[in-house]
Amino acid sequence: MTPREILSNKKLARLGDSYVNFIFSLALSKRRGEPVGVRVKSRVLADALKMADLRDLLPRRTDTHTQADASEAFIVYAWLHEIVSLKESVETIEGKVETPVEAFSELLNKIKERMGFVCE
Amino acid sequence: MTPREILSNKKLARLGDSYVNFIFSLALSKRRGEPVGVRVKSRVLADALKMADLRDLLPRRTDTHTQADASEAFIVYAWLHEIVSLKESVETIEGKVETPVEAFSELLNKIKERMGFVCE
Repeated sequence: MTPREILSNKKLARLGDSYVNFIFSLALSKRRGEPVGVRVKSRVLADALKMADLRDLLPRRTDTHTQADASEAFIVYAWLHEIVSLKESVETIEGKVETPVEAFSELLNKIKERMGFVCE
Repeated sequence: MTPREILSNKKLARLGDSYVNFIFSLALSKRRGEPVGVRVKSRVLADALKMADLRDLLPRRTDTHTQADASEAFIVYAWLHEIVSLKESVETIEGKVETPVEAFSELLNKIKERMGFVCE
């Protein structure tokens, strides 16, 4: 799959949704020292996609929800293909858990670099 | 924490919710050969709790949602404390993914046995 195909894969996004909520909940739980369960907002994942320079791989009129789906698909793809482990994903987010857009942007950038691709 | 304390820990249940949805989505994805994302219904997790003989550790008037919370708390507790790995959790569920109540009951039973406790 090309990066563009990963980002627009709706099925991957559905699995990614549960993965992203799980890793963010875990990171927040570690930071707070007690278990918490949260859902990551679409706005956060859409902004992170933009910050990681991945948004331009999607069509111009793509809405916020679809941009968030793209982040979710990309992040779970990386885990499924052992590009970034669960542990490392959580640690990356944990470091910036108070600024979740930056946290997810850092994770997306890490994946991008390891996949070794350059955005047009 | 005693099993009863784990089962009624609401904070653990919130983290467990995202964990349970993630492992079930993964198991279903593996079975179908393509990624899917699903939420596990409270009814399923409540029935699994009963089938695993854990329901009686909660007060008699406990509702379905709270019984489901108990399953979620128990399952994520086991992962956090390395009693059952993510991989093994997914494999346990994957084997019975068409009968999710039995799948989760089997996972709960596995945790119970490894924790070595006997229900009153």
